[in-house]
Amino acid sequence: MNAPAKFEGLEVGYDIPALPGMAEADIQTPALVLDLDALERNITKMGDLAAQMGVRHRVHGKMHKSVDVALLQEKLGNSCGVCCQKVSEAEVFARGGIKDVLVSNQVRDPAKIDRLARLPKLGARTLVCVDDLANVADLSEAATRHGTEIECLVEIDCGAGRCGVTTTPEVVEIAQAIDAASGLKFSGIQAYQGAMQHMDSYDDRREKIDIAVAMVRDAVDTLAALGLDCDIVGGGGTGSYYFEGASGVYNELQCGSYAFMDADYGRILDKDGKRIDDGEWENALFILTSVMSHAKADLAVVDAGLKAQSVDSGLPVVFGRDDVTYAKCSDEHGVISDPNAVLQVNDKLRLVPGHCDPTCNVHDWYVGVRGGKVEVVWPISARGKAF
Amino acid sequence: MNAPAKFEGLEVGYDIPALPGMAEADIQTPALVLDLDALERNITKMGDLAAQMGVRHRVHGKMHKSVDVALLQEKLGNSCGVCCQKVSEAEVFARGGIKDVLVSNQVRDPAKIDRLARLPKLGARTLVCVDDLANVADLSEAATRHGTEIECLVEIDCGAGRCGVTTTPEVVEIAQAIDAASGLKFSGIQAYQGAMQHMDSYDDRREKIDIAVAMVRDAVDTLAALGLDCDIVGGGGTGSYYFEGASGVYNELQCGSYAFMDADYGRILDKDGKRIDDGEWENALFILTSVMSHAKADLAVVDAGLKAQSVDSGLPVVFGRDDVTYAKCSDEHGVISDPNAVLQVNDKLRLVPGHCDPTCNVHDWYVGVRGGKVEVVWPISARGKAF
Repeated sequence: MNAPAKFEGLEVGYDIPALPGMAEADIQTPALVLDLDALERNITKMGDLAAQMGVRHRVHGKMHKSVDVALLQEKLGNSCGVCCQKVSEAEVFARGGIKDVLVSNQVRDPAKIDRLARLPKLGARTLVCVDDLANVADLSEAATRHGTEIECLVEIDCGAGRCGVTTTPEVVEIAQAIDAASGLKFSGIQAYQGAMQHMDSYDDRREKIDIAVAMVRDAVDTLAALGLDCDIVGGGGTGSYYFEGASGVYNELQCGSYAFMDADYGRILDKDGKRIDDGEWENALFILTSVMSHAKADLAVVDAGLKAQSVDSGLPVVFGRDDVTYAKCSDEHGVISDPNAVLQVNDKLRLVPGHCDPTCNVHDWYVGVRGGKVEVVWPISARGKAF
Repeated sequence: MNAPAKFEGLEVGYDIPALPGMAEADIQTPALVLDLDALERNITKMGDLAAQMGVRHRVHGKMHKSVDVALLQEKLGNSCGVCCQKVSEAEVFARGGIKDVLVSNQVRDPAKIDRLARLPKLGARTLVCVDDLANVADLSEAATRHGTEIECLVEIDCGAGRCGVTTTPEVVEIAQAIDAASGLKFSGIQAYQGAMQHMDSYDDRREKIDIAVAMVRDAVDTLAALGLDCDIVGGGGTGSYYFEGASGVYNELQCGSYAFMDADYGRILDKDGKRIDDGEWENALFILTSVMSHAKADLAVVDAGLKAQSVDSGLPVVFGRDDVTYAKCSDEHGVISDPNAVLQVNDKLRLVPGHCDPTCNVHDWYVGVRGGKVEVVWPISARGKAF
């Protein structure tokens, strides 16, 4: 594992939920717990799959927001770098030692562009997405002023309905402007289809990605005919990486959730109709929570509510139990349906969060456990870095 | 206003969204912005209303998690103290100078009980809720060991369906045990009806509170007949404070959201059928967000998604605009429907969050503005304090 964080002056319970060496039973709840064995298997497996498909894997750091996890993904999963969504996240990863950082998003605010242009001075290859000709001049001016280079990917909206252009002529126009701009380098295409990742059916997901691949192939071929080669054709998530990886067009995957998993992703089905959390990926991330009241016979109240997770994609699932159910969530309380009154005050449960990314963003620490012991405590180093 | 926070070594954009003296237009987004005029009016008004009803107001610090806001509520709203939901929050408020702190929740974990028992050493009157006889002995042991006093309120579940007992005999049994325990003091009743606060109809809310008041009155009268007086009978929120305040039984209100307001609370109706954000309370809290892409003519993409807010109670509302609508939320993006293409890249919008409490919990700073200028930047001092 990586070097441990520094804990001088931190008090367990006030600042930090646990310290290395503690028993798992003594972790202060609610806390985010990582099953290190499961995490390492997930990371290693995705690295192997990318290698077998002959593509690179640029892991999505916006999911975990942790330098320590990103470094583990380099070591065990042979990741080529990270992507993230905000300049402030990119700064955290670059300061933490990641040498290749893509902001897979648009950067338009002058102050943020200035910070992006300074990122290479931290020793990181710096990439960003562009979907507007007007952005090219601003990025170029900042990079030139700082004497740095910003590599640019033209973003294609291949179905997510957010940022990105939708036609090859628009891609070409922006790519040529980047290529001609001082301080900038045209490095390829960003085409992440976020909207289909959570569709249950494998065939429905493939149908959406087929559309994306056709759009991207047309753009890449047209650019090549004009002498503009794509060093990076990036995209692909936990629900689709096998499609992009086998497309012959994409050459960099950008998976995030596979490492931790969550309840919403777990429900999607693989090509055999099996849930992807039943063999493909393991749940490695849990909200550890404690029963704090059982004043009603059939209801237990736990200490993980809306401030310990995000419920945008549904309520959490109690891991490894079918006798109790997380039934209701308010700010600081979770109500557990316990029809047979099997739970007692101070019992602990592992919850699989509905959606890992925004759940990680409300916590300050990952507590990594193995064999019932706390092995590492990692800061969620880019938590709250939303600028 | 309170003394400004220290900003040495902090970099705007990386660590902090703004510094005092900056123009509002230069705030790095997404950021939580407080309209200080509106905030001060809300705080002053609720203080006046409580005084008119002859009850104390113990403000709910779990909503804002900020020592600076709590001190402003003392100064302008004559609050008698704060309540909060976690021991780690109580520690922040006590360390920040609040002298009267109620953990309006159950504390059962031995490590947390130990920390609670040490709170009076920080100079704060320390109160907690109890709904289980077994908890009394644990609290007593810790307070005795530390030579401190913990004041205890028996919690009644008057309809929220979370913690709390539901019958007067249970209340009496626990109250008598507290009264007999060394290190503890029986101080009254906690009875917050959380489930009805967001019901739209004033009459529906009154019906629920009538039930709560009857339960509480029975318990208070029974205890009095046994020689156990209630120094505190606490409860009441932004959707109900006038009922508890006029009940003749409750003597401490516990309102939180009134100070900031949010879209979900704004929709509930007063006794005249008017929305409460139309005159009763002002929106003082906003997520300031910037347009980062407008590649599609009728859609603008802004930089505030799930990591800048909680959408458990619905999407945010664009403040003061009926020409654009916040239509979709993903991790780092918000999609704004802009049918007439009135927005441009880098335009800023003020969003009223769906639910203030968990939205405040993902940010590190409040940026207080007045007259287009940043006047204060306050740390959200108990952010992430979930233990």
